[in-house]
Amino acid sequence: MTSDQLRTELSELGEFGLIERISSKVDLTQAGTIKGIGDDAAVIDPGTEYQVVTSDMLVEGVHFDLSYVPLKHLGYKAVVVNLSDILAMNATPHQITVSLALSNRFPVEAVDELYAGILLACRNYGVDLVGGDTCSSTSGMIIGVTAVGTALKGTIVYRSGAKEHDLLVVSGDLGGAYVGLQVLEREKAVFAEIGTQPDLEGHDYILERQLKPEARKDVIELLNGMKVLPTSMIDISDGLASDALHLAKASGTGVRIFDEKLPIDPATYGTARDFELDPTTCALNGGEDYELLFTIPLNDHDKVKGNPHLTVIGHMTHASEGCHLVDKQGVLHPLTAQGWNAFRD
Amino acid sequence: MTSDQLRTELSELGEFGLIERISSKVDLTQAGTIKGIGDDAAVIDPGTEYQVVTSDMLVEGVHFDLSYVPLKHLGYKAVVVNLSDILAMNATPHQITVSLALSNRFPVEAVDELYAGILLACRNYGVDLVGGDTCSSTSGMIIGVTAVGTALKGTIVYRSGAKEHDLLVVSGDLGGAYVGLQVLEREKAVFAEIGTQPDLEGHDYILERQLKPEARKDVIELLNGMKVLPTSMIDISDGLASDALHLAKASGTGVRIFDEKLPIDPATYGTARDFELDPTTCALNGGEDYELLFTIPLNDHDKVKGNPHLTVIGHMTHASEGCHLVDKQGVLHPLTAQGWNAFRD
Repeated sequence: MTSDQLRTELSELGEFGLIERISSKVDLTQAGTIKGIGDDAAVIDPGTEYQVVTSDMLVEGVHFDLSYVPLKHLGYKAVVVNLSDILAMNATPHQITVSLALSNRFPVEAVDELYAGILLACRNYGVDLVGGDTCSSTSGMIIGVTAVGTALKGTIVYRSGAKEHDLLVVSGDLGGAYVGLQVLEREKAVFAEIGTQPDLEGHDYILERQLKPEARKDVIELLNGMKVLPTSMIDISDGLASDALHLAKASGTGVRIFDEKLPIDPATYGTARDFELDPTTCALNGGEDYELLFTIPLNDHDKVKGNPHLTVIGHMTHASEGCHLVDKQGVLHPLTAQGWNAFRD
Repeated sequence: MTSDQLRTELSELGEFGLIERISSKVDLTQAGTIKGIGDDAAVIDPGTEYQVVTSDMLVEGVHFDLSYVPLKHLGYKAVVVNLSDILAMNATPHQITVSLALSNRFPVEAVDELYAGILLACRNYGVDLVGGDTCSSTSGMIIGVTAVGTALKGTIVYRSGAKEHDLLVVSGDLGGAYVGLQVLEREKAVFAEIGTQPDLEGHDYILERQLKPEARKDVIELLNGMKVLPTSMIDISDGLASDALHLAKASGTGVRIFDEKLPIDPATYGTARDFELDPTTCALNGGEDYELLFTIPLNDHDKVKGNPHLTVIGHMTHASEGCHLVDKQGVLHPLTAQGWNAFRD
């Protein structure tokens, strides 16, 4: 350990600052390494097609709360969030490894439940569980998943390919996972206080968005069928604002998002209002939607227009114009990223 | 969570039991999956060479104790243990991903130290750090590493290829990492009790075996140079006895190991005696040596004989003869595996 006078708190740097600090020290030396840190997945060239690899870690008490997350759902979600990263490269996931640390407060049956969810996700997405590691932990459960997939060399999509005037498109709708989390947190607090059973009635859609999200493999197939090749793409894990900023930064462009275009499900909208939350803020910064956010050339507008799974929410600009949200009155507001400091501390 | 009447303790099943329970539920469906759970690494066929993938998780308080493990060494070791799994497939590691969860008791400088070790290992072994994940944890540090490598299709080595009469060979020497751990634990206890500084004098070799192990890439190159292709191979992470049993079980053979052949460094031997530990037991069950254990056809005996890096310690038998250690009096003792239950609970 280092001495106290050199202590810099992690919170000063934040998650993205820490990633930048680490990646600034990394040299890539392997001929087969096509893309390292800084996209949804790493890209490796073993000779024919590309291989894409991504790893994620889910920590009890940080990423999930077992007081309201069923273990089967947790296993499912742990796989899906990784597959979503592979799909966001326009790649096809084929294999996963799962590393699991858990304390002896968990019985074997809990592990069975978790793997039931993991294997259900494998079946639903056509991937194989090929390895991993199990070990004990001193407190709680930690799940590490690595996903491996393949991509055609000519059609892999990075975060960095967006051009000025490209349209910004998002799949599905936004904010539901975050509002679902609010319902779960409220019911947990009520249960702790007065011991009544959770009232989750009428919240099926947003609870499913939070507890059992799906990776948009169907959207990748849809785009492929339409012959639309995105110029850049990312999956929405941190939140639309944060992830749109990732695309703009990696591509060297600005971005403009129109508030009134944001796709928000009525269930999300209504519950956000019940919680006195701004639905736009939930859609922008809620995160965990696992929808795909991508850019397409203006020429492709007709192909996506009117498709119920896709919404054009803005466009890329010259870098000098910056990154903004345009409100219903046409006023520009700077887009700001929300990393873990805002949501997890 | 499941109800209490169905509760089976993890310790009843043990690490290997849990892995078997999980893998028995897994179906492999992808044409590109050559080998799933049950070897040192998974094997994937993307078209030309094979890709091999392995993941491991290291948990503070279980796999390492930061009161005596320097962070730089920890980072180095976290990488090396994964590269060792790739090498144990007779494959060449090329890329790693690192996922890191840590609580805010760690300053940024601690992360720097950890990554200094990770990147030193990358440089020493010629691999690229290509991705991963950083997140917070509620307690302590968890490091997840995934390594990816390539192998020629004709020369990949599984655990399952050993034949009756094949010689069992081990690289380097055994038991040092375990005895080194005893020294560190003793000095920690002394420090806690009377506050004196650790006395690590004269224990350089075994401390290095514990704190900064190396993966035997040199041995893979040596075997390649000698034109010796092992029939089966594993790296010694759990301990010689346990890992020899893995080879025998996967290959459908028995195994016989000769006590008097076990390579034990004088430093390991002397310190084991000081601790009133049996050096043979340390070599058999200590684990964490990260040496390579492999089998070769009897015909190749002349090629390895007398090589200072390699020791023939026994041979494979017909399955019906079982798995035994032969003591200096020629008496057979059944080999028994030591999983996490024995060493970590």
